[in-house]
Amino acid sequence: MRVTVWNENVHETTEDDVAERYPDGIHGAVAAAVAEHHPGARVRTATLAEPEHGLSEAVLEETDVLTWWGHKAHEDVDDEVVERVQRHVLSGMGLVVLHSGHLSKIFRKLLGTTCNLNWRSAEDREVVWTVDPQHPIAEGVPHPIVIDRQEMYGEFFDIPAPDELIFISSFTGGEVFRSGCTFRRGNGRIFFFSPGDQAFPVYHHPDVRRVIANGVRWAVPTGERRSPVLRNRPAGWFE
Amino acid sequence: MRVTVWNENVHETTEDDVAERYPDGIHGAVAAAVAEHHPGARVRTATLAEPEHGLSEAVLEETDVLTWWGHKAHEDVDDEVVERVQRHVLSGMGLVVLHSGHLSKIFRKLLGTTCNLNWRSAEDREVVWTVDPQHPIAEGVPHPIVIDRQEMYGEFFDIPAPDELIFISSFTGGEVFRSGCTFRRGNGRIFFFSPGDQAFPVYHHPDVRRVIANGVRWAVPTGERRSPVLRNRPAGWFE
Amino acid sequence: MRVTVWNENVHETTEDDVAERYPDGIHGAVAAAVAEHHPGARVRTATLAEPEHGLSEAVLEETDVLTWWGHKAHEDVDDEVVERVQRHVLSGMGLVVLHSGHLSKIFRKLLGTTCNLNWRSAEDREVVWTVDPQHPIAEGVPHPIVIDRQEMYGEFFDIPAPDELIFISSFTGGEVFRSGCTFRRGNGRIFFFSPGDQAFPVYHHPDVRRVIANGVRWAVPTGERRSPVLRNRPAGWFE
Amino acid sequence: MRVTVWNENVHETTEDDVAERYPDGIHGAVAAAVAEHHPGARVRTATLAEPEHGLSEAVLEETDVLTWWGHKAHEDVDDEVVERVQRHVLSGMGLVVLHSGHLSKIFRKLLGTTCNLNWRSAEDREVVWTVDPQHPIAEGVPHPIVIDRQEMYGEFFDIPAPDELIFISSFTGGEVFRSGCTFRRGNGRIFFFSPGDQAFPVYHHPDVRRVIANGVRWAVPTGERRSPVLRNRPAGWFE
Repeated sequence: MRVTVWNENVHETTEDDVAERYPDGIHGAVAAAVAEHHPGARVRTATLAEPEHGLSEAVLEETDVLTWWGHKAHEDVDDEVVERVQRHVLSGMGLVVLHSGHLSKIFRKLLGTTCNLNWRSAEDREVVWTVDPQHPIAEGVPHPIVIDRQEMYGEFFDIPAPDELIFISSFTGGEVFRSGCTFRRGNGRIFFFSPGDQAFPVYHHPDVRRVIANGVRWAVPTGERRSPVLRNRPAGWFE
Repeated sequence: MRVTVWNENVHETTEDDVAERYPDGIHGAVAAAVAEHHPGARVRTATLAEPEHGLSEAVLEETDVLTWWGHKAHEDVDDEVVERVQRHVLSGMGLVVLHSGHLSKIFRKLLGTTCNLNWRSAEDREVVWTVDPQHPIAEGVPHPIVIDRQEMYGEFFDIPAPDELIFISSFTGGEVFRSGCTFRRGNGRIFFFSPGDQAFPVYHHPDVRRVIANGVRWAVPTGERRSPVLRNRPAGWFE
Repeated sequence: MRVTVWNENVHETTEDDVAERYPDGIHGAVAAAVAEHHPGARVRTATLAEPEHGLSEAVLEETDVLTWWGHKAHEDVDDEVVERVQRHVLSGMGLVVLHSGHLSKIFRKLLGTTCNLNWRSAEDREVVWTVDPQHPIAEGVPHPIVIDRQEMYGEFFDIPAPDELIFISSFTGGEVFRSGCTFRRGNGRIFFFSPGDQAFPVYHHPDVRRVIANGVRWAVPTGERRSPVLRNRPAGWFE
Repeated sequence: MRVTVWNENVHETTEDDVAERYPDGIHGAVAAAVAEHHPGARVRTATLAEPEHGLSEAVLEETDVLTWWGHKAHEDVDDEVVERVQRHVLSGMGLVVLHSGHLSKIFRKLLGTTCNLNWRSAEDREVVWTVDPQHPIAEGVPHPIVIDRQEMYGEFFDIPAPDELIFISSFTGGEVFRSGCTFRRGNGRIFFFSPGDQAFPVYHHPDVRRVIANGVRWAVPTGERRSPVLRNRPAGWFE
């Protein structure tokens, strides 16, 4: 299992409180979560500031699952890189989109919708409920997960109806959110999981870490990587 | 539009507070909700105590949509009547299952699961959020609906993944619930809507009434009523 | 019901046999199909060669449902117009994508996948089977529809799992295809229907015309047109 | 992986040609298919004629996945055994329903519909196409599978919309069929796969055998076996 953890890494490098909360960056916290649950995995990180954002053709070819965290700098992500990532997802690379990644170029490009939602950065408690208890991503996850302080994400969340709805969250303010969703696109598996924020230590929460690690495992492609093709087939081609 | 509103009518006839809350029975309140939104509809009611529970073959043949409310007396519903209702649903009759009807014989028979859930009869506030805003059942419905006092229904709710998930509710206690779901079975359309209880005046809430009326309209069959059949087809039968 | 029928109109203006088959253009045939089933509808057409391809902001604002036919000239469609159409779909405008429109920019942009498939332009017979007989788009449609000569479209068809699968086709060569699918994106309804080709008179087939007209009716938005938005919500905003 | 292969075993014991085609019974052929792909699995068989049809409480408790083949004797299966199997499926036991098992009591009870279809026992060729190529059940399966002679099963097939549609078949006569479908019910996973018949040697086809073995592997429960329960939860129970 070869995992690339991508992070824009802007909050951590410009805001002291975030740097203190995530001394290795959000990418460091996410990478550690994957590694602690999958000791055999090869986990690397990549960030916005690197050449090609650390997502060259060579890196993606060697990546089974890419995780994505972005927030402030979505528009700074190069369109060419986004198209490259899309191509790899449609060819089979798994993608785990985290929290504010809902507005990333790559997520919106793969889903085709605005991915808008309601939000509030206050002191809400988020409670994450499992509605598909036998899904591999829910394995070992308590029902519910309680996150003491977290940004509120609320409906209406403008996404296509997910292929599988695994988690629904409630917030102190009374809002609800489809917080764990899967989508299959081309040969790739996509998992979106909303808990997690730069302003709260959510990526240190053991159950959040477990869900992310489960999501990564679930998104690993089976079979060879290839894009669906347009093909002219003569009559009798398969006989 | 010919609607039959079914109610076990046990709480209302044995408990003073329920009788006071619903002087015409829960069936009376639901029938009024349908009638106020669909002035041209022919709305009748039927209850457990009637012969064949008021659901004879003749009544069902003349029913486009049946609504179902039961709670204390699910086991007193005759199996033969349940099979008759199932047969009509599979032939195209619409079915709107309300609140505690989740444990009715007919709902469990059509879905195949236990339909169990978590519950609490306290003083929770229920907030009903629309996650499919263009669905005809959500038409004219505020986002969110606020119900000041209501029984809590919480996940895990043991139903098949719904064909369409329209509403998700949160409760004061932090629970969430898939409170508005559709299912297609045979030629029939089924809508489950959980808000509503004998202990609270929820069926007098204007938005709850609107959702029920929308659900009834949506469940009306199109085309002739007939059950899917097993048929031996010779080669070339359609040419 | 205000319908705009879009067509690239290239085959008809450059190939004699197509011009003979569709003397009013494919757009003319599709527009006539819609008009014959919806006598009250306001149906207009638009083509690639017009300024802004006939799809100005003003035209789209007055369009409830847009139908799309393209084949040879997908890449000539201006990206700005494509983004405009996407914005209108996400705001609620219906979209009916026909046949080779599966590779149009707008369809791929809304679905996020390659939309590739297998194909063969020979003399296959296409037989279209209904697998969701109560869907409004299947109303009045024979089971099966037989199209004597038609281009083969076969699986694997690289689309997201449709929200509803209504039609499946078989071809003489033994291939199958998910030929009638719905997708909800933002506030818009999308219907893809594959039967229809420039090389065969499929748009004169009465049942194909009925399906297209049904699809247009189904895709009409309910409620006001607006795009889902990103919104900061203070605690207690809905109380 | 503990697998119980159930077969009514009536054709094989009363018709010479079937006995010759399946000298170890259809259960023998299916069990061998599972064993050849999962060498570590403990595979046992059970048939209608055994006490409790070989499906005692003890057997089911030790069964991770049950496969089901029946045709002539559906009505001879004891209702109590059917309820026991349903209870185990809802608690997490996997179920793989094969071919004419579509009309078995257990399949109809779990799905809630008639499960009727069109059929023809002639000399059709069945071609099985994969429409979800990344699904674990499609792993290693050629696209398409060609079965030279097979009973035709055609739409309309009266099942709930499957959670996942993996295979679609075409037949020489032009019919199509949703031949590989998954359904989640309670904590259990259900896979229906239609290729296979007593009158043709389909269970000796290597690709059919692979799909069945894949389906068994996919249906193995994860986590402990337990039925979803109805539970009264006080406020604050999860804090």
